[in-house]
Amino acid sequence: MNQHVNLVLTGRWLVSMDGNEPLEEEGISVAVAGDRIAEIGLNLACKYPQAELLTCPQGLIMPGLINSHSHAAMSCFRGLADDLPLMDWLTQHIFPREAQLTKEIVYQSTLLSLCEMIKSGTTCCNDMYLFTQEVARAATDAGMRAWIGEGFFDFPSPCYGELENGFAYVEELFKAYKANDLITITVTPHSVYTCSPPLLQRAAALAEEKQALLHIHLAETMSEVSGCMEQYGCSPVQHLEQLGLLNERVVIAHGVQISEEEIALLAKRKVKVAHCPESNMKLASGMAPVQAMFNQGLTVGIGTDGSASNNDVDMFSEMSTAAKLQKVRDLDPTALKADAVLQAATMGGAALLRADAEIGSIKAGKKADLIMLNMNQPHLTPCYQPISHLVYAAKGSDVVHSVINGQVVMRDRQLTTLDELTIIEEMRKIGEIVLRMH
Amino acid sequence: MNQHVNLVLTGRWLVSMDGNEPLEEEGISVAVAGDRIAEIGLNLACKYPQAELLTCPQGLIMPGLINSHSHAAMSCFRGLADDLPLMDWLTQHIFPREAQLTKEIVYQSTLLSLCEMIKSGTTCCNDMYLFTQEVARAATDAGMRAWIGEGFFDFPSPCYGELENGFAYVEELFKAYKANDLITITVTPHSVYTCSPPLLQRAAALAEEKQALLHIHLAETMSEVSGCMEQYGCSPVQHLEQLGLLNERVVIAHGVQISEEEIALLAKRKVKVAHCPESNMKLASGMAPVQAMFNQGLTVGIGTDGSASNNDVDMFSEMSTAAKLQKVRDLDPTALKADAVLQAATMGGAALLRADAEIGSIKAGKKADLIMLNMNQPHLTPCYQPISHLVYAAKGSDVVHSVINGQVVMRDRQLTTLDELTIIEEMRKIGEIVLRMH
Repeated sequence: MNQHVNLVLTGRWLVSMDGNEPLEEEGISVAVAGDRIAEIGLNLACKYPQAELLTCPQGLIMPGLINSHSHAAMSCFRGLADDLPLMDWLTQHIFPREAQLTKEIVYQSTLLSLCEMIKSGTTCCNDMYLFTQEVARAATDAGMRAWIGEGFFDFPSPCYGELENGFAYVEELFKAYKANDLITITVTPHSVYTCSPPLLQRAAALAEEKQALLHIHLAETMSEVSGCMEQYGCSPVQHLEQLGLLNERVVIAHGVQISEEEIALLAKRKVKVAHCPESNMKLASGMAPVQAMFNQGLTVGIGTDGSASNNDVDMFSEMSTAAKLQKVRDLDPTALKADAVLQAATMGGAALLRADAEIGSIKAGKKADLIMLNMNQPHLTPCYQPISHLVYAAKGSDVVHSVINGQVVMRDRQLTTLDELTIIEEMRKIGEIVLRMH
Repeated sequence: MNQHVNLVLTGRWLVSMDGNEPLEEEGISVAVAGDRIAEIGLNLACKYPQAELLTCPQGLIMPGLINSHSHAAMSCFRGLADDLPLMDWLTQHIFPREAQLTKEIVYQSTLLSLCEMIKSGTTCCNDMYLFTQEVARAATDAGMRAWIGEGFFDFPSPCYGELENGFAYVEELFKAYKANDLITITVTPHSVYTCSPPLLQRAAALAEEKQALLHIHLAETMSEVSGCMEQYGCSPVQHLEQLGLLNERVVIAHGVQISEEEIALLAKRKVKVAHCPESNMKLASGMAPVQAMFNQGLTVGIGTDGSASNNDVDMFSEMSTAAKLQKVRDLDPTALKADAVLQAATMGGAALLRADAEIGSIKAGKKADLIMLNMNQPHLTPCYQPISHLVYAAKGSDVVHSVINGQVVMRDRQLTTLDELTIIEEMRKIGEIVLRMH
């Protein structure tokens, strides 16, 4: 591989998430050839002097974080309306504005979130929203690895209008991104309370045909559960089971209001869960039983949800909250340990996307999705256990370099694919439009 | 005052916390004369051209955050042992090492936390630990405003040995810092489970004599409550009440395991509460009923606790967690709104310290404890409501300038009073000592 290595990252710590313990050694390096990791070793810059070098004397190299559930474009609603009852927030502030969204707003708002994601260590997201062509365009511009789906529901969409057009829209997406390195299309019926059983089944058939992920909000709130009981006589998990929809390609976001038996069923069906603790807290949805999910062998990823209900897309903050929330939920300080959380945010997310052979850890032959943190900071000194620091002390702002699919997307905290200040400027104008919408 | 203004801060937003709404106006400025705020107005740099200028075109000026409960020196234990049962953590990892602490370790570890505090927007802390002379020395070096107390307990201390010496040590502290601008000495019996009733009463008498704060851990865990019930036949709050110790100079840290009746009693006695949500989560202590405390008119501040159980001293993260945790605790998204949390972290902290006439808000005549955030960032754009962003989206790393008692302690994220890189270097060596202690 010698002749192909074109990028070397060199630091002091390596947290590979490939089953090996964290390493601390001066000059520890990862060499990248094209879009893949070529080699892990010491002082590889000497071995590959022609390669571009990303370095940091007290740097920690790790796999990029995987955001398992996001609505990137919702950055245009961040801080617009907080601390409200859920239905007021949705029906008075979010839904009326979402109905007026445009391609341009979604594109710019997604770009903004992608800036934020890259600047806080995320190299891959599993996004679900509207105007997916625009989300895909923004992800392509950013060089972000993204799984993306267009929301289906029983009512018309601001993107595609009537549902029939929605399926045509998604067919086009599958065609356009069939062999794309970065973008993977998913099928995303919104939820059991916004999608009738026939719609859910049609979406599942499409996912089956395309062998795509089926990504759906499920068991997020108590009112969703009681509504489902009332309408279908069973819980949301049971409802999908009865419709025959649960399988290894299904990703459920939230899974907050869920029983031990349902966890066992999800494990049996190999369904994956995207855990979004900060959104669940802020919307007062509840605390998902994540340790119980781990105990039953479920694959769990970590997600931020949209920044209207979080209010950020910072996976470092989300990891810290996930670990702490589970401990206080279970009244057990040993619940959801740091290594389990970091696993969920890297290899767990990769497995949730059925891409763990390609991303989620640092291993020769895998895709080069890598970040480096500068550990030479008061809040990360001394460093007894790097994994503890990554989960409990590190901040998104500690990430100095980021590489996605072999491309350097951030160098010394400067974005290379996106013009951050122009995006911020554009977003201010969109903020004025969004305010006037109401 | 014209002739005395020596510092001007100019930005775009002003969140004064003095009862007025946030202001957005280009050129909004705060002028400082010596240690006090002299004037609030537009483009004050033109009016005071001789003054030093701290500026940021998209800057937000606000009062510095007040950390109502910290153990700054515990930074030397951060990440040393996580995810353990509380008693294992304390008895196997923390207590044996605390017994071997030295002046130098406490001094350096406190300096490190003070770097972190300043870099994340804190301008005042209420610290309780060991070797208080060293803590005070570090705070003086940093230019940090600090309330500081030396821990009392029934067993010997690594600082002063036998208890009798402890009271002499604290007398010396009161003398040394009697008329200090930045340092205020408090009386800090550790807790009801480490202090006998006579010790608690002696500490309270000293606090009474000095008119000092009495700062104590109280009702932190269920085991503390059950232990107190067993030993004294009543809860920790009732225990202090029966001893006649509850009054307006008492600050209790945590207040997690506490009933509505006890909240009413604390309100009646004008006791203040330092709420430490992240530590309470990480140690699985529980979720303090903070909204209920507000409802009953209690004064509540926000604290980080030590970074061994948090694992940081970042008040922006703590505010965000406080708001979200209360919502999920009460299953009510309207609980602990952003403005209430920001109030708790500024004026609430100031009132808890009985210093709200001097600090906690931006008002002419008050002490100049000010920070400025750079809002020109993806995660803070657009800005519909500055207070929402400060609580839910801003990060400690967004703080660019910081002023304490009129002194610029950070300019463009560079510390001016402390040599950050040397402190980090020293702290690495201390980390090696701490590791070998076991």
